Amino acid sequence: MNFLSVILFSLSLSVCLAKQLPKHEDKCHNLLGDELIAEILSYEKVKDEILNYVLQGDFKGQTYDQLAKFVDKFGARPSGSEVLERSIDYMIELTREEDINDIVTEELEVPHWVRGEEKITMLEPRVKDISLLGLGRSASTPPEGITAEVIVFENYDQLDKALDEDVRGKIVLYDPIFTTYSETNQYRTQGATKAAAKGAVASLVRSIAPFSINSPHTGSQTYGDEANKIPTAAITLEDADLIRRMYDRGENIVLNIKMSSTLDTKVSRNTIIDLKGSVHPEKLVIVSGHIDSWDVGQGAMDDGGGLFISWAAPVILKRLNLIPKRTVRSIFWTAEELGLVGAYAYEEAHRNESHNINFIMESDEGTFAPLGLIVAGTDKARCIVAEVLKLFESINASTLIEDDSPGSDISVIIKTGIPGASLHNENEKYFWFHHTEGDTMNVESPEELDLGAAFWTAVAYIIADISVDIPR
Amino acid sequence: MNFLSVILFSLSLSVCLAKQLPKHEDKCHNLLGDELIAEILSYEKVKDEILNYVLQGDFKGQTYDQLAKFVDKFGARPSGSEVLERSIDYMIELTREEDINDIVTEELEVPHWVRGEEKITMLEPRVKDISLLGLGRSASTPPEGITAEVIVFENYDQLDKALDEDVRGKIVLYDPIFTTYSETNQYRTQGATKAAAKGAVASLVRSIAPFSINSPHTGSQTYGDEANKIPTAAITLEDADLIRRMYDRGENIVLNIKMSSTLDTKVSRNTIIDLKGSVHPEKLVIVSGHIDSWDVGQGAMDDGGGLFISWAAPVILKRLNLIPKRTVRSIFWTAEELGLVGAYAYEEAHRNESHNINFIMESDEGTFAPLGLIVAGTDKARCIVAEVLKLFESINASTLIEDDSPGSDISVIIKTGIPGASLHNENEKYFWFHHTEGDTMNVESPEELDLGAAFWTAVAYIIADISVDIPR
Repeated sequence: MNFLSVILFSLSLSVCLAKQLPKHEDKCHNLLGDELIAEILSYEKVKDEILNYVLQGDFKGQTYDQLAKFVDKFGARPSGSEVLERSIDYMIELTREEDINDIVTEELEVPHWVRGEEKITMLEPRVKDISLLGLGRSASTPPEGITAEVIVFENYDQLDKALDEDVRGKIVLYDPIFTTYSETNQYRTQGATKAAAKGAVASLVRSIAPFSINSPHTGSQTYGDEANKIPTAAITLEDADLIRRMYDRGENIVLNIKMSSTLDTKVSRNTIIDLKGSVHPEKLVIVSGHIDSWDVGQGAMDDGGGLFISWAAPVILKRLNLIPKRTVRSIFWTAEELGLVGAYAYEEAHRNESHNINFIMESDEGTFAPLGLIVAGTDKARCIVAEVLKLFESINASTLIEDDSPGSDISVIIKTGIPGASLHNENEKYFWFHHTEGDTMNVESPEELDLGAAFWTAVAYIIADISVDIPR
Repeated sequence: MNFLSVILFSLSLSVCLAKQLPKHEDKCHNLLGDELIAEILSYEKVKDEILNYVLQGDFKGQTYDQLAKFVDKFGARPSGSEVLERSIDYMIELTREEDINDIVTEELEVPHWVRGEEKITMLEPRVKDISLLGLGRSASTPPEGITAEVIVFENYDQLDKALDEDVRGKIVLYDPIFTTYSETNQYRTQGATKAAAKGAVASLVRSIAPFSINSPHTGSQTYGDEANKIPTAAITLEDADLIRRMYDRGENIVLNIKMSSTLDTKVSRNTIIDLKGSVHPEKLVIVSGHIDSWDVGQGAMDDGGGLFISWAAPVILKRLNLIPKRTVRSIFWTAEELGLVGAYAYEEAHRNESHNINFIMESDEGTFAPLGLIVAGTDKARCIVAEVLKLFESINASTLIEDDSPGSDISVIIKTGIPGASLHNENEKYFWFHHTEGDTMNVESPEELDLGAAFWTAVAYIIADISVDIPR
């Protein structure tokens, strides 16, 4: 999951709750009419068939087991790596075994940033190792490292007010307390550029997380065009708090930072799997997740879970011989973590046929128990989705949250005016594990993945099968 | 906190709850009599004075601030290290600044195990770094490491049933799912010796913890007298689960384990601080915690918190000029983590005056919000403590749990027949951080430390001041 995806999450939740009043019901009823509402309700039986197959039938536990086999076999799958390409080949083979053969891959150039040695040693006021993870695309230090004093800022406002001469030659530590990801991750994504503009020699950021067991969280950052590319890394909440306490006591803090990495480009692939529609094969309902991951952890949560429920959708429909009128397309995006690179390439390559995308879905904020969808689109589009979601009250997945930019990769498509949704799920602990060594199968649950796969598949089927297109 | 301390915890909780019925009340009333119960109740005012001073008065926040200064200055304080001795000197100086000068230290020989390079690389079925922490006193591997296949056991029963030829030459992984610390830590403390007896070349243990963000947990282990001293380490829950999944699939798992360490002995000190009693200075009510820590993390929770509430007790009483009839003695144990070494030395050195120990208390299971005490002693002893605890209903710290071996260091004293108690507190997450790099100030809370210090001090004062000794 990248930084675009959580923007306005809390805000939109309250907006949604306000809109889910009877007035909203009336509005939807007027927009949709009795007939369409009745038609959507008539999918109750097929929805039950899908839920039963996944929650109690032959598919029970399969999403978790397949995800575990995949994650255990490949581990981390960073952009530009060979292991990412092998994992793509594996997913194609796994899909072919289901006798689904409408599979294409589309090549694109992706960043290939490879982490080398990373070490921070506090030299003053006492010697201590500081846990870190370099941020994506960070520059290296000289081999002997950078040794300098630390200056601490809670926010950009404090940095802006500081005298250049007080920052020059120093290591900047940003220490923003986590509120929401969208509010705090700016210190990770732009911190180095802003610190360099004041003459800092390196920048560190408090990991963008609400909880830690001394866990550093990596993530993307980009240098501004004019920026002096200073090395930049995330440190743990614990070490950030330690340094801040020392700083507040007036102690002189000196660190040595050693970091090395390489950056070039490689070719990777988006993977596109179609379960062709019976009536309008050209029309697409897309489900998706990204197959690349950070180089730390195992990429089980971000985004192995989203990848596998999106893999499961055409597979489950094929096994149940449920072929909707429109095509259900499953996309495995590549190189999401270094800037939605696969999604941008797809959008560009498919721009002239974008009118065929009926609805686009993505799961990249965890596959904990599903709660509903975070939906972008017109009022009528949202009303249709809201009616579909009513079918999922039995699994507590009927909540519709309005957000004009849901998801991460799909935000690239949605901003061109196409309606879509990301998975709303019980992901309160998502940022405990996000972009850390702790992103492993231990975060995933067989029961929650079953619920997610069943929900994802049934929603995609119904939207792909109903008599009306999702309006724009 | 060492392994002795949590035994029978859950069991004794249920026993206690059963005993806290009216019948228990009747029994205590008969044992104590109206006069003693009235006397204990009369301490309400002095209890309030202490609570007000710590929770709202000049001492508010002091325990946290002093602990933070100490932990930030020294960090980890492993047995036998120079930093441990400097931290002892610091605590003595800090106490002298309070004009408390009845301070002695008692020297003893302690183990000095120093961790060197540690690295585990999975070679088959794929290359992956495995996070680890060597266990205390572990032997080293040869410089090139030990490369061998893994065999996985969930428990000793499975190991015992395995053929020697199936274990010989292999790396044993114990993968016991955490239930309670006392049930599962046997795989850490004795695993190497048992695996070596079957011919294993190294042993690993799933970290003794219920939750992880890829966090390995170290801890003590001891080789049996006859044991072949094979290298031994803890790995994370995540990697243990990964290896078990691979093993269950029939995959061949090969690891290379490199570990180095040194072991010798050094001299350390127990620290003994007395606030002399006004009437019976020879009689002791002891509060205590250990000052040493593991070499990972900062020893803030284990046992910085217990150390500082025990430091605070005489300091708060001195500041309030509340001098009880008996002496309140604060002990900072050394070398707890490598086998209660300081406590054993104290018990031996003070055996001929042990009749003077009226009651002994220890905090070594966290200093989260206090809930009461875990008490060893006769029925009458427990009844007196139960009456004292009733005074703490306003801060929800009135629970008495019966346990014949509470605490870690003090269990050495208690087993000689002396009554005592350990702090019962809201420590459900204690084992998330225990013996990891995550044992830092971030686990501690100023408010909870205030509650703990106030409770600890007031209980010690009342027991040191009442007209009767705690009976044996």
